[in-house]
Amino acid sequence: MAAKPSSQTEKIAHHAASKWRGGSFEAIDDALAVEEPLEIRLAGRRFTLTMRTPGNDEELAAGFLLAEGFIANANELDEIRRVRDAKGVEEPNAIDVILNVRAEGLRERMKRNFTISSSCGVCGKTSIDSITQRIVPIASRAKVAAAVILQLGERLRESQQVFAATGGLHACGLFDTDGKLLAAREDIGRHNAVDKIAGWALVNEILPLSQSIMLVSGRLSFEIVQKAAAAGVPILAAVSAPSSLAVELADEAAITLVGFLRDGSFNAYTHRARITA
Amino acid sequence: MAAKPSSQTEKIAHHAASKWRGGSFEAIDDALAVEEPLEIRLAGRRFTLTMRTPGNDEELAAGFLLAEGFIANANELDEIRRVRDAKGVEEPNAIDVILNVRAEGLRERMKRNFTISSSCGVCGKTSIDSITQRIVPIASRAKVAAAVILQLGERLRESQQVFAATGGLHACGLFDTDGKLLAAREDIGRHNAVDKIAGWALVNEILPLSQSIMLVSGRLSFEIVQKAAAAGVPILAAVSAPSSLAVELADEAAITLVGFLRDGSFNAYTHRARITA
Repeated sequence: MAAKPSSQTEKIAHHAASKWRGGSFEAIDDALAVEEPLEIRLAGRRFTLTMRTPGNDEELAAGFLLAEGFIANANELDEIRRVRDAKGVEEPNAIDVILNVRAEGLRERMKRNFTISSSCGVCGKTSIDSITQRIVPIASRAKVAAAVILQLGERLRESQQVFAATGGLHACGLFDTDGKLLAAREDIGRHNAVDKIAGWALVNEILPLSQSIMLVSGRLSFEIVQKAAAAGVPILAAVSAPSSLAVELADEAAITLVGFLRDGSFNAYTHRARITA
Repeated sequence: MAAKPSSQTEKIAHHAASKWRGGSFEAIDDALAVEEPLEIRLAGRRFTLTMRTPGNDEELAAGFLLAEGFIANANELDEIRRVRDAKGVEEPNAIDVILNVRAEGLRERMKRNFTISSSCGVCGKTSIDSITQRIVPIASRAKVAAAVILQLGERLRESQQVFAATGGLHACGLFDTDGKLLAAREDIGRHNAVDKIAGWALVNEILPLSQSIMLVSGRLSFEIVQKAAAAGVPILAAVSAPSSLAVELADEAAITLVGFLRDGSFNAYTHRARITA
């Protein structure tokens, strides 16, 4: 079975953004890595959902099923086909895997590996609808000065004791709109660091975080925006690049999304009106 | 409810490693970020498992349940307690959450959010046993010269067209033991890039990859080592830091684990005998 070749174009999405540099915004056209959900079905039945960059979806499904112990070799993989809608048009984000594994053996493998559960905002969901149904736009009149945003990275790094020792941890920091650090958490998983901050706010009864800025190390995915939205965060910033879907979700959720916050500049992708000069 | 404070010491693990620099190995003691599974229970029942850095586990559970829509505020969180073993000793990696949500409402929330499934090697599992039961040590006599390893990073970057444009993608490359690039895949998720390479090998019927070197951008977690082990990869390298559990699993799985491959040097953490001068 040959894997389907994919073009580079579907892996990059262009998005208008505003770059803050030298005291003012300039309009830019930013190239974002595409993030889209892929629904993997087993013999027509919804099985799992993963956020991925389109392309080589058949390989992704095969490799995932290998790692999970569902198949051991190409013989156990009968066919991988694109899912088609009622009009026969290929769905871009759904594929169907037909295994060549005896039903008895497959039940045993599923029982061993899968249970009702999920440990992140995306994994464990099986349908694309299930990940976007709860978005409520953030109602917050918070404003933050661009000069404050520029200082956040250094303040978060100063609080990162473990990263300094290991180089191996992600961080999430919560700041007020004057740039004062309220809390910081480190974790091997970026989504865990965000969960820890949201959980800290919950147990301290300061939700929703409608006057706060959240900063994460590294990149911004759909999942991180979803978690920030659940905590009511109006301004979300990251040191590195956002994905296409992170920008789309932030737009819908009325979150001000800031990326590439480093070296004295940053890009604002959505709801820029909360950032003052 | 106050979150439990945690010490920095449980977030760092020291591990003996060998640093290759200037033509020879030197022994080093490397500080690794700790990665351990956390089992989250709901009223005593296993609910989900996440890989995390220990500390602030109560916040992590509360934030996760908030993001997933199980709770909306502190009132819906009755208690979070450490799980104790038969002798009354606290389990370091298990906590139990008691919600203050009516059973009817909770059933509705679970139905909406959770289904039998998983999209990564860890998410979706509920017990710690379930993630380590399938490790079979890799039997491979592959050898690779240190000088070959040093070239891999640049060869992978040359193949990363989308990263160059967006700064937002992870990559996984597969090489033979002479350093020839066999395949490279990019994805917003590091685990997806690894799945795509393993799936490519599976559909091309070249599993197990017992004469190959796999290189991933960024960091090495437990999950990545698990996926490499499933594909039979004997030598796994990364540009950045491995976690504590990645090193432990590589040791068990007889994988040669290489980290911090950059700037003309690298660290070998396990099964160094496959690397020749």
